[in-house]
Amino acid sequence: MLEQLKEEVLQANLELPKYGLVTFTWGNVSAIDREKGLVVIKPSGVEYDVMKAEDMVVVDLATGKVVEGTKKPSSDTPTHLELYRQFSEIGGIVHTHSRHATTWAQAGRDLPALGTTHADYFYGTIPCTRLMTDSEIQGEYELETGKVIVETFRQREINPKDVPAVLVNSHGPFAWGTDAHNAVHNAVVLEEIAYMNLFSYQLNPNLSSMQQVLLDKHYLRKHGKNAYYGQ
Amino acid sequence: MLEQLKEEVLQANLELPKYGLVTFTWGNVSAIDREKGLVVIKPSGVEYDVMKAEDMVVVDLATGKVVEGTKKPSSDTPTHLELYRQFSEIGGIVHTHSRHATTWAQAGRDLPALGTTHADYFYGTIPCTRLMTDSEIQGEYELETGKVIVETFRQREINPKDVPAVLVNSHGPFAWGTDAHNAVHNAVVLEEIAYMNLFSYQLNPNLSSMQQVLLDKHYLRKHGKNAYYGQ
Amino acid sequence: MLEQLKEEVLQANLELPKYGLVTFTWGNVSAIDREKGLVVIKPSGVEYDVMKAEDMVVVDLATGKVVEGTKKPSSDTPTHLELYRQFSEIGGIVHTHSRHATTWAQAGRDLPALGTTHADYFYGTIPCTRLMTDSEIQGEYELETGKVIVETFRQREINPKDVPAVLVNSHGPFAWGTDAHNAVHNAVVLEEIAYMNLFSYQLNPNLSSMQQVLLDKHYLRKHGKNAYYGQ
Amino acid sequence: MLEQLKEEVLQANLELPKYGLVTFTWGNVSAIDREKGLVVIKPSGVEYDVMKAEDMVVVDLATGKVVEGTKKPSSDTPTHLELYRQFSEIGGIVHTHSRHATTWAQAGRDLPALGTTHADYFYGTIPCTRLMTDSEIQGEYELETGKVIVETFRQREINPKDVPAVLVNSHGPFAWGTDAHNAVHNAVVLEEIAYMNLFSYQLNPNLSSMQQVLLDKHYLRKHGKNAYYGQ
Repeated sequence: MLEQLKEEVLQANLELPKYGLVTFTWGNVSAIDREKGLVVIKPSGVEYDVMKAEDMVVVDLATGKVVEGTKKPSSDTPTHLELYRQFSEIGGIVHTHSRHATTWAQAGRDLPALGTTHADYFYGTIPCTRLMTDSEIQGEYELETGKVIVETFRQREINPKDVPAVLVNSHGPFAWGTDAHNAVHNAVVLEEIAYMNLFSYQLNPNLSSMQQVLLDKHYLRKHGKNAYYGQ
Repeated sequence: MLEQLKEEVLQANLELPKYGLVTFTWGNVSAIDREKGLVVIKPSGVEYDVMKAEDMVVVDLATGKVVEGTKKPSSDTPTHLELYRQFSEIGGIVHTHSRHATTWAQAGRDLPALGTTHADYFYGTIPCTRLMTDSEIQGEYELETGKVIVETFRQREINPKDVPAVLVNSHGPFAWGTDAHNAVHNAVVLEEIAYMNLFSYQLNPNLSSMQQVLLDKHYLRKHGKNAYYGQ
Repeated sequence: MLEQLKEEVLQANLELPKYGLVTFTWGNVSAIDREKGLVVIKPSGVEYDVMKAEDMVVVDLATGKVVEGTKKPSSDTPTHLELYRQFSEIGGIVHTHSRHATTWAQAGRDLPALGTTHADYFYGTIPCTRLMTDSEIQGEYELETGKVIVETFRQREINPKDVPAVLVNSHGPFAWGTDAHNAVHNAVVLEEIAYMNLFSYQLNPNLSSMQQVLLDKHYLRKHGKNAYYGQ
Repeated sequence: MLEQLKEEVLQANLELPKYGLVTFTWGNVSAIDREKGLVVIKPSGVEYDVMKAEDMVVVDLATGKVVEGTKKPSSDTPTHLELYRQFSEIGGIVHTHSRHATTWAQAGRDLPALGTTHADYFYGTIPCTRLMTDSEIQGEYELETGKVIVETFRQREINPKDVPAVLVNSHGPFAWGTDAHNAVHNAVVLEEIAYMNLFSYQLNPNLSSMQQVLLDKHYLRKHGKNAYYGQ
């Protein structure tokens, strides 16, 4: 079942150590088959160097039940599912504890757009979620994590297609995209800009966000109907 | 004697350069056979790329005497032995001068829990020891180093099983675990969080420790009888 | 057409990942044949590991029209062309988003000469351009980027041969040189000094530029008629 | 002539890229044959990956004249020679622009002993030289660089055997040792502590040097007649 999607999810998971985004088993990537309403996700706590396509777990989008697979799915599965349910245009999700994005998440700070590297991929500030309440944490924690992400985008009127990442407060980043590979691509960019923005603020503590018109220019030259970047 | 444990200790020592935790011969890993009361530890000042299982030195837990081996044990052996004697649940110990954990140790600062990466492995602040006295340093220095670590955990009522690492003031980290491999695993995590916390404080100098309930949630989903992470 | 120059431009582009200056396809290198008035440049958005010499695009210096090649040239081509038109002595150009040079560009700060590493390659401060106006950004943006670089060097009376790099505000670095390979060489040096200067300022916030006489000494022992460095 | 020493100097030079201490050709290592009064040094501006033992240049200690070799010696040769003449116990010297040691040199700051990593190799503060005068820079610059290093150690009464490195103001580090390999070893340690001390100060801006008794303990357990580290 979903052999091709499993292979894609496996490959996207293997990109995490390749790009230096994970230590040990700290990341997980998933992808969705929207027609079938099924999500393929990395198993929990399995080492990247022994992971195979058949280890990927197939989960029902609506119920979260395992539909196929001998292993337990990632403990973060309910977060992924909530994002797929609420953000209807995304096809893949990745969660990591990559060093610099996590550094911002731990600090509880939004990651503002300071340059064109950011603008080429993210159409404005990447938000950091509010602290979760005790009852959210003690309840269905991973599901509530997804809900607080969705709340952040709704309340701040951010389109998750235009800003395909979030910093979960005191935790780390989630990124998403059109598919699993694209989600990892965005996670790599997030890590780059998290690094650069950290030190740009040290060089200029009073720095504010980049010009809106420059943000528009760079985002729109790569996205949307007037894009002219690439082949 | 203890051939399997020697092999485990060798492999754990070789993980140190693999994970970028050591320069030259600056780290050492040991493990204990509790039944026999014997500790296996890396020899002093031997290069990792020529080290063999038979180079590992077997030392008596109670007396510190070399029981087997042609080489001198690590000069830090008395510190390891004191920790094994006082922390009865640990099976392996590692000492490194890894860059960021050492940076905190040199600054004489505790490493507080700022996020879930920390909470997944360490149940609260990783303490930094007090400065040692002149007589401790000039006396049986390596033994006294172990004693000041034990004192730190006793006085601050920290369970070494829940917080499997310490920063020795003006020196560097020790980490431990259920066995040699697990100790190194914890040392890798310590280095990651030492890096991230350093810069989280720069992004938010007024940052305090993470919510206790989130610390509980993450630590307990991976440890103890209600754990649900992994296979 | 221009087979040798295409090969040189390919090789120079491949140096970018080798030296850690690019993530994904974020850099581009070009070179010029001054006699023919033709520029060879990397295609837009093509991965480095599949790029071939025949993928390089030949563009007319004066008109910007593609003269040969089946792929679209880099979207930054008009910037390269403007620099070749106005800086008559340069033979190759490179644009990257390398981490530390971009960190300075995002902060909108000039990179001053703080030491001999800088002085060996750049004869004084590497300037950061002014913010572009809305009409520049919304107009022929990539061409205007070139124009604002040229304006910076003219107004501040900097010779682009002596200071072969610039930081484009809110964007990232361009570097140039006698040919494509030399341009990349200068981009590597720029990244090194951007790193070191960032932290030198943290160690000494009141640091001013290095002594002029030391700058002269180091620059001139490697450049000009009295140079005595190298074979 | 001096075939074995040439091979040693070659190997020590090749350790520089291995340990990440150099970019391009920015470092040079030399060693001395005290009996013959001859110094073997890297040629100027030659790439590490094509360098051979026969490329090493033999220079007369007293006169600086090339005694053997078809290539020009490193432009820093007069600095090396002055150090060999004045520091009679050293057998090898290395100069690099390694990132963090250079960061301190550019900031014009001494590198104080903040922890046992430092104390294991350097018996106290690693000094930064004063700024050179205009006439020193415009005169025999490389020789004068050596002289200002020697002056620093003499005036501050530092034994170059106990503190085998220096930071040349606005420039970068020189390190030395019993032979070429040992000099590079010390340069690696210098880079490690330059990194860690930079960030230890950020965690604790009021940090002062480590306890003298701890410095004594660690330095003397590895050096001198009562050393007990290693085999």
